[in-house]
Amino acid sequence: MARVNPNYSKLKAGYLFPEIGRRVRAFQAENPQAKIIRMGIGDVVLPIPEAVRIAMHKAVDEVGTIAGFRGYGPEQGYDFLRDAIAADYKAKGAQVEASEIFVSDGSKCDTGNIQELFAGDATIALTDPVYPVYVDTNVMAGRTGEIGADGRYAGIQYLAMNAENKFVAPLPSVAPEVIYLCSPNNPTGTGMNRQELTNWVEYAQKNNAIILFDSAYEAYIQDASLPRSIYEIPGARKVAIEFRSFSKTAGFTGIRCGYTVIPHELEGIGPDGSKVSLHTMWNRRHSTKFNGTSYPVQRGAEATFSAEGKEQVRAMVGYYLENARLMRTGLQSMGFEVYGGENAPYIWMKVPKGYDSWSFFDSLLKNVQVVGTPGAGFGPSGEGYFRLSAFALRETVHEALGRMSKVFPLR
Amino acid sequence: MARVNPNYSKLKAGYLFPEIGRRVRAFQAENPQAKIIRMGIGDVVLPIPEAVRIAMHKAVDEVGTIAGFRGYGPEQGYDFLRDAIAADYKAKGAQVEASEIFVSDGSKCDTGNIQELFAGDATIALTDPVYPVYVDTNVMAGRTGEIGADGRYAGIQYLAMNAENKFVAPLPSVAPEVIYLCSPNNPTGTGMNRQELTNWVEYAQKNNAIILFDSAYEAYIQDASLPRSIYEIPGARKVAIEFRSFSKTAGFTGIRCGYTVIPHELEGIGPDGSKVSLHTMWNRRHSTKFNGTSYPVQRGAEATFSAEGKEQVRAMVGYYLENARLMRTGLQSMGFEVYGGENAPYIWMKVPKGYDSWSFFDSLLKNVQVVGTPGAGFGPSGEGYFRLSAFALRETVHEALGRMSKVFPLR
Repeated sequence: MARVNPNYSKLKAGYLFPEIGRRVRAFQAENPQAKIIRMGIGDVVLPIPEAVRIAMHKAVDEVGTIAGFRGYGPEQGYDFLRDAIAADYKAKGAQVEASEIFVSDGSKCDTGNIQELFAGDATIALTDPVYPVYVDTNVMAGRTGEIGADGRYAGIQYLAMNAENKFVAPLPSVAPEVIYLCSPNNPTGTGMNRQELTNWVEYAQKNNAIILFDSAYEAYIQDASLPRSIYEIPGARKVAIEFRSFSKTAGFTGIRCGYTVIPHELEGIGPDGSKVSLHTMWNRRHSTKFNGTSYPVQRGAEATFSAEGKEQVRAMVGYYLENARLMRTGLQSMGFEVYGGENAPYIWMKVPKGYDSWSFFDSLLKNVQVVGTPGAGFGPSGEGYFRLSAFALRETVHEALGRMSKVFPLR
Repeated sequence: MARVNPNYSKLKAGYLFPEIGRRVRAFQAENPQAKIIRMGIGDVVLPIPEAVRIAMHKAVDEVGTIAGFRGYGPEQGYDFLRDAIAADYKAKGAQVEASEIFVSDGSKCDTGNIQELFAGDATIALTDPVYPVYVDTNVMAGRTGEIGADGRYAGIQYLAMNAENKFVAPLPSVAPEVIYLCSPNNPTGTGMNRQELTNWVEYAQKNNAIILFDSAYEAYIQDASLPRSIYEIPGARKVAIEFRSFSKTAGFTGIRCGYTVIPHELEGIGPDGSKVSLHTMWNRRHSTKFNGTSYPVQRGAEATFSAEGKEQVRAMVGYYLENARLMRTGLQSMGFEVYGGENAPYIWMKVPKGYDSWSFFDSLLKNVQVVGTPGAGFGPSGEGYFRLSAFALRETVHEALGRMSKVFPLR
């Protein structure tokens, strides 16, 4: 009988979000009349920007004609989109060439697939709590041992971020080959400032490590001291890959578009000791296992860089940030310790005494029908915390806060 | 310095199609006035069906409203599409449940990613010539040794298909754990009949092997003796995974949608000797590394199953098959030995004496500016053959045949 990948059996029972979905569906089935408010999965609710709608319409019409038809596009993305992205980087002070940009169907795929470029036993470090995809895809690839009783997979360095260290992860005690960073951070909603990110770039340079930098939430940065791209930091082009997405920026969670930047000068080391371009390797992977992002989707993404598109994106981001502000202040009034939500669409809060993060999840679901994300789902250092997403309609935010305030009375 | 995946260095210099693109661009640059006819990459040219255009329009409008907005969809695909696919399978005599269908952004991704489910040293067999993605993704994953002077990677069993064996691949001499099959075949354009496919299913049952069955071209089958799905064969549900795509069926090469079927009863063997559901494993992979197919794209795919959509797809497939017929007869009149093209959109022909497949490619490009695909690009047994795609406008087919007949006069 065909032997399966033995590493899958090391994975915990369920990926976080399907597990949340399962519990919510079970509750809804038992309580069909309950009006559940979903602030768990970080999924947007506002419609796609009008500029995107118009551009996608036009693209669909184009491919409905012989003259305008487009079949397979370049696996790396169309030049019209890569050029628009590169121009946006440059306008914001980061040096990125269009040829260094790989358009994809989303950052989940890219951050999940990128580990394929590294040796099967490459050493990994990541901040904890963290987007589960970074961990799980390395488990699947066999870079870890079994999971321990402490919730940590053997062979991964977990760099704890918590209220005590103000959510600034310590540098690794032993230099890893690959480091996953995310800023503004999912799930903590906190962002690295220029000095903190500079420390990481210098650490990577000194230790010959590669930083995988997830900046899916950069559009939410309001504080000018937080870099929006790792390439704003001198030297980053030699040590970092960056991931971005239109999901949270322009409401693309259901439309699907993201991109990965791999500078031409970024190198790893090959089996014979020679230096190997990671850009060339990713290009080979992308051309072999991916067939390009949907053309109408790429036209929609391009439209977010038009004058109208930019304005519409700004308004959308502003709307969610106002939600975050309301949630921060509302939850603080109820006595919760609250983090994040100023440069990110996520609120990260401590669960009340007597709860752990899953029991608080279950309690909120049962008592006020508000769904959040248990911190423990993001890693061992997330235990004791809870994530609420600001991706909601305003009235939903008010309703959720109102319901919670009945259980956690305002002080 | 971070050590890279050592297996990438085993790959041949370029993935086939980018290499063709490179040669064509170089020729075009030197001959800017040349009108090149592209019948190399199997890329469609007719516009998307009108039913698809209307459905995608409507879906884009929906997500442009608060009430109709949809964010993250199920990673496995929306029920409306999975149900439509399952109904189509049943109507054609194959038992497939909606819950067994995983919608994706295309078959290239699925056929490339599926190997992740198997052990790192699982043994592989594949027909030769073959879609290069099957081979290259196993090389990247380290299941092979180096490539030999004969063009074969150590550790893969190549099952030769050629004019001598009428393009019926022999069964493997040593039982592999995983077998890649494609019918109607890319590149040979030939299809397996019921008995041949039954032989494979029985072989897999007897030898506990898993068949990865690529039926991306099933819509082109005209001969009722050729199964459209492996699940038409009794017992196949216990041994086979099937891949399908809307690319060649409905003109989706630039729109991006495919699907993979993994029956619930399909099992491999885990590291502890227990049986493991491949459906469960793929579900975990799909949920962890993929975030669902674009919603408007899924609505477009659904529309291909409507009454209008089916009729429009039938017309499109008929158009390309008529191209194939013209090419077959035209090339035969020039004295070429021609295969395929009756139940598939590909013509597979022997190159004239004195040529190998790349020199014939270069010669056609130079002399008549017609681009095909060198058979050797599909594997060692493709040497001496050449693929022409019937995905072209009718006038292009006539023009290409006209140009070729000046170099290879009609007999």
